[in-house]
Amino acid sequence: METLKIIKIGGDIIDDAKKLHKFLMHFSQIQGLKILVHGGGKSASNLTQKMGVKVKLINGRRVTDEETLDIIIMVYAGRINKKIVSDLQAIQCNAIGLSGADCNSISSIKRPVKEFDFGFVGDIVNVNTYSLKVLLKNRMVPVFCAITHDNSGQLLNTNADTIASELAIGFSNDYSVQLYYCLEKNGVLMDVDDDLSVIEKINTASYQELKANHIVTDGMLPKLDNCFHAVDNSVKKVCIGNPEMLFEANSKFTTITK
Amino acid sequence: METLKIIKIGGDIIDDAKKLHKFLMHFSQIQGLKILVHGGGKSASNLTQKMGVKVKLINGRRVTDEETLDIIIMVYAGRINKKIVSDLQAIQCNAIGLSGADCNSISSIKRPVKEFDFGFVGDIVNVNTYSLKVLLKNRMVPVFCAITHDNSGQLLNTNADTIASELAIGFSNDYSVQLYYCLEKNGVLMDVDDDLSVIEKINTASYQELKANHIVTDGMLPKLDNCFHAVDNSVKKVCIGNPEMLFEANSKFTTITK
Repeated sequence: METLKIIKIGGDIIDDAKKLHKFLMHFSQIQGLKILVHGGGKSASNLTQKMGVKVKLINGRRVTDEETLDIIIMVYAGRINKKIVSDLQAIQCNAIGLSGADCNSISSIKRPVKEFDFGFVGDIVNVNTYSLKVLLKNRMVPVFCAITHDNSGQLLNTNADTIASELAIGFSNDYSVQLYYCLEKNGVLMDVDDDLSVIEKINTASYQELKANHIVTDGMLPKLDNCFHAVDNSVKKVCIGNPEMLFEANSKFTTITK
Repeated sequence: METLKIIKIGGDIIDDAKKLHKFLMHFSQIQGLKILVHGGGKSASNLTQKMGVKVKLINGRRVTDEETLDIIIMVYAGRINKKIVSDLQAIQCNAIGLSGADCNSISSIKRPVKEFDFGFVGDIVNVNTYSLKVLLKNRMVPVFCAITHDNSGQLLNTNADTIASELAIGFSNDYSVQLYYCLEKNGVLMDVDDDLSVIEKINTASYQELKANHIVTDGMLPKLDNCFHAVDNSVKKVCIGNPEMLFEANSKFTTITK
């Protein structure tokens, strides 16, 4: 099977013009099939402030009300996505920017209200690779923002890490899929303050230990859950690390296995 | 040759949720190959105001400074484009939202500064149908916002009427292209206050007369120039009218011929 690399970048790269440019230069040089998934960065929060929309948080998690969703769509699908696409086109990478609504690629449902109402947040229910495979076969490079749709005309804010892992799973019947989560840090660390303390391999058993010993905490937990979800569903390779893991033979990073 | 319909809608439809929904319902039912091009509507100006960015005008024409361009990208490529795409997907039309940067489909140059500097406005220099034909062949429906790129990473604000006519010309070697400009009015009118006074046919000679007699003025002039540019460059059919021209057999509208 042909290899497909799905690469997710987050706010640390998106918010830093120089880092983003350097990353895209490297990304454009990756041979073979590839998909880029980008998060939002601080730009949406900045615009929210500028427009006087109050950021609503529940337990530290942002609530996506209608006004916030509108801003997120504008910033993610508009400003950030088109900036990345035009930058990639300038370096001969045939990028095509997409949300989950475009060619009905990622469907979701509005997260059911239980204890909290997170608002217009989408939990992915289906990845439709039909049209995406046409794009890949014709050497287009999909660039996904973190927005999905519910098939009834509602756009929904969706976690970019989850988009990357669900895309990876969705393509795993057709390609040998490699999933890369790019971070500022060199990977999952034994000591969060020591960037050299990279844990090179994590499997299901060692993950339980790392959690029990509070070595892996906070934002790394849902990211690792996404990683294990991918390896449990036929994704061939899942890695977390600095973008250099993609380009430098000797760089250290974390590989997730069953 | 297979027929390709390119349909442009403007602010009057985009700013009116009911009209837009009705139009998209009809659009989704059009058989065969089709492309939708949409303008911006008032939503960008509203956001500009909300953010306290001053609208700069030269001779009544908007100057696109950096802040304004950013807003235009967010509103056109983000808010409006993704709203249309998700609405079309909800009615089983396989829409894919695009700017001219996506799959390098429309390249432009920043309008040269002569008497005035219009800022980040792009004049189209090339339509690249290579990837778009792949989308069409695979029954995707491109939905274009009025943004292009300069191939060096700069996005540019571009007239939506011009995007529609240049796309029509770009495809005229491959398809029998029909270009439809949708308006609130029923077409080009003899008497601007009488919606029944539709001029059903305009050719190059009668256009000169209509201009000389000040029957065609203001915003209709560049629109008609775009129409003649298209018919002069192998576009098979060019029409201006109410969206009903697309769906109702007996509606009156204006057809432009050589």
